[in-house]
Amino acid sequence: MTLRAVGVVGGGVIGAGWAARFALAGTAVTVFDPDPEAERRMREVLAGAERAWRRLTLAPLPPPAPVAVTGDLEAAVTAADFVQEAAPDCEDHKRDLLARVSRAARPEVVIASSTATLLPSRLQGGMAGPERFVVGHPLDPVYLLPLVELCGGARTAPETIERAAAVYRAIGMHPLHVRDEIDGLIADRLLAAVRREALQLMSDGSATADEIDQAIAFGPGLCWSFMGTERPDAEAERRRDDCLVAVLQALRSQGTAAGATLHAFDQRLFQGSHRRLMAAGDDLARPLRLHEARVLPEWVDYNGHMTESRYLQVFGDSTDAVLRYLGADAAYNASGFSFYTVETHIRHLREVEAGAPLRVTTQVLAADARRLHLFHEMARGDDGSPLATGEHLLLHVDTRAARACAAEGEMATRLLRLAAAQAALPRPAAAGRAVGQPRAGQRAVAT
Amino acid sequence: MTLRAVGVVGGGVIGAGWAARFALAGTAVTVFDPDPEAERRMREVLAGAERAWRRLTLAPLPPPAPVAVTGDLEAAVTAADFVQEAAPDCEDHKRDLLARVSRAARPEVVIASSTATLLPSRLQGGMAGPERFVVGHPLDPVYLLPLVELCGGARTAPETIERAAAVYRAIGMHPLHVRDEIDGLIADRLLAAVRREALQLMSDGSATADEIDQAIAFGPGLCWSFMGTERPDAEAERRRDDCLVAVLQALRSQGTAAGATLHAFDQRLFQGSHRRLMAAGDDLARPLRLHEARVLPEWVDYNGHMTESRYLQVFGDSTDAVLRYLGADAAYNASGFSFYTVETHIRHLREVEAGAPLRVTTQVLAADARRLHLFHEMARGDDGSPLATGEHLLLHVDTRAARACAAEGEMATRLLRLAAAQAALPRPAAAGRAVGQPRAGQRAVAT
Repeated sequence: MTLRAVGVVGGGVIGAGWAARFALAGTAVTVFDPDPEAERRMREVLAGAERAWRRLTLAPLPPPAPVAVTGDLEAAVTAADFVQEAAPDCEDHKRDLLARVSRAARPEVVIASSTATLLPSRLQGGMAGPERFVVGHPLDPVYLLPLVELCGGARTAPETIERAAAVYRAIGMHPLHVRDEIDGLIADRLLAAVRREALQLMSDGSATADEIDQAIAFGPGLCWSFMGTERPDAEAERRRDDCLVAVLQALRSQGTAAGATLHAFDQRLFQGSHRRLMAAGDDLARPLRLHEARVLPEWVDYNGHMTESRYLQVFGDSTDAVLRYLGADAAYNASGFSFYTVETHIRHLREVEAGAPLRVTTQVLAADARRLHLFHEMARGDDGSPLATGEHLLLHVDTRAARACAAEGEMATRLLRLAAAQAALPRPAAAGRAVGQPRAGQRAVAT
Repeated sequence: MTLRAVGVVGGGVIGAGWAARFALAGTAVTVFDPDPEAERRMREVLAGAERAWRRLTLAPLPPPAPVAVTGDLEAAVTAADFVQEAAPDCEDHKRDLLARVSRAARPEVVIASSTATLLPSRLQGGMAGPERFVVGHPLDPVYLLPLVELCGGARTAPETIERAAAVYRAIGMHPLHVRDEIDGLIADRLLAAVRREALQLMSDGSATADEIDQAIAFGPGLCWSFMGTERPDAEAERRRDDCLVAVLQALRSQGTAAGATLHAFDQRLFQGSHRRLMAAGDDLARPLRLHEARVLPEWVDYNGHMTESRYLQVFGDSTDAVLRYLGADAAYNASGFSFYTVETHIRHLREVEAGAPLRVTTQVLAADARRLHLFHEMARGDDGSPLATGEHLLLHVDTRAARACAAEGEMATRLLRLAAAQAALPRPAAAGRAVGQPRAGQRAVAT
């Protein structure tokens, strides 16, 4: 199916959301809206949608398709391969608009209405070619939520449902065919039931709106993106847990709701682990063992092995553990100092599968008040077989001045003490593969 | 607050979930359950919970605390610093259990019940020290869902609510104080409202259970983990979109529901981008421009800059783009061949902030049927300033035999053609900082 041009009737939040989704997927859009403000609103929604899609997709987006806004209804739909109506939910107004659209559009073009409350059999009454009419109801924001509920009227042809579903799939949506013409279709009916119960709790004085939001967002709302309303059987528990973990980590990346709770708990766990590390860390003359990890399922690439950047992530986390060990923690960073990595050398020795335990040992090859030269060895935690080595040169920096500087006071003392304690360790055979060799014209971070 | 030992009364799904959450957070647990099967169920839940927590937290977990199962109620709670009851919801049975617990536990110990349907004023009736009783209602799985609804009875002391909330926070939960003693508290009331509406739709024949699940999971369910029931105002739209993108990407990592829809759409976008790349890719004598990216908010570390492993992620994605360009796509991998990176050298030249556009150009330093030697230069997409270089040696491998081998046929031809076309390009000044130099005893991936 080729979809070169789409007409959108109505430029409110829903219409603009439709226009953004079609345009970002590469289809030219003409929006009908008589309001002189429509063009400005459209540009705002488009900018927000483009920002979201640049984060959303792994694949590069196609070149942006043009979006035009016009006050001429017929001009918006004459050349369209598909028409999406998104006018206000007033039956008489909508019937009139759809009848005009049906006379201006080519006879084979599918015409869809965004309504959830008006019945398709009534809306298609005055149309030329009512068999190509269907309800295609989205949710706000249209450009991110995949659900689109399809519902035909008494005169809708079955193939119209299929053709509309194909259009929606092509722009990344999930079409759901609702067989009965019911007010609210399915999703809005369920939303309304939640709202009614919430209003009852509020009018009884049993809960505030904020408490109700918390009861959803920290509880069942965490499951509703992958489980619907049902609880899983025993076999599905592991999959349910994986999805819950992924959603909780997503929310942590946004610092929101249950993600903020998880972050606070993680900080508590980190404090405990730091106390354990510091207590065990007196034997500085041995390679440091400050970091362990496990290969997460999402770290694995199409070959079934840990993808290459995750090796550096584990080495980076190991470097962070060394820095925390030295006292270069959040408070030290807040005081205006930090360590920046300027050069890295990695040897990939062996592949490793999802779930495998990882253990990193770290040798300080050299350190003074200005630089820290580390050599990490990553091995399997179960059988000790070597997986990779990472050699890293870090500079101590003044983050406000954005340049390298010497550490002072306790930090300088600790750097020198650690370097002196590890100086007697044999140099790893793989160390020195070029990292850190002085070279004319070399540039460093933040100099 | 020190919490060394917890008693859990009842070893069903909820009790075992409580035991797992306490034990993983470092607190010893004794579970009372007269059922001889309780110990086996407990070990199963514990194993599942530990697996989930190893994925969930960034911080290392504390050493696992012991979990004991006993058929002796008094023995389970005598030494406890906190008691969590999770017996079946039968009022007479629960009143009896709680009365016995209240006489065996130390008088200052808080005793919490997991019920959502029995009223705390009635449950605390026969207890010694009823002022330290509170309802603390979790959701399944207890070890992952943070919500715990707290509700006191008529004789519950206000500080009991606060002490219980502190215990729950210490194990990573989100306590929500429900002020009225209402059947179902808040979360279960809302869940029940959704279930009632779902049953109505099913009994009307308007929707199947699966259709209802889809209407939630692909629509409003995507928002309920961060928005509760409310729709955002205009100011909150950007934050809403960021959360939605994060949740959609989390589901993509699990291949589930809206994540599977997003993945299918991404594949469609990739096909379009490959067609555009191949069509534009005839001038092989220039450095390749196959990859662009943008610094995502979650790529940024505590210094406010892109964290080091993300540089390698972008270089890895650039390498993948070169491989796709060469035709080493999913079908090629499925045929048993792939390219593995064996050595990497990165120079970090300049920091870069969240939101910045990135552009990578790639020069093929050398290639033959067995190896591919790449040099990536990463620059800002807006002002072209250099950010990092990545030099990578890849070997062509037989993935089933797990060893390097020569590419054959078209792949060999393309490798040689690309290398020959780029041979005339000047060698980057920063290339050759040790990567790829032969060295006695060097080991490679998959040999």
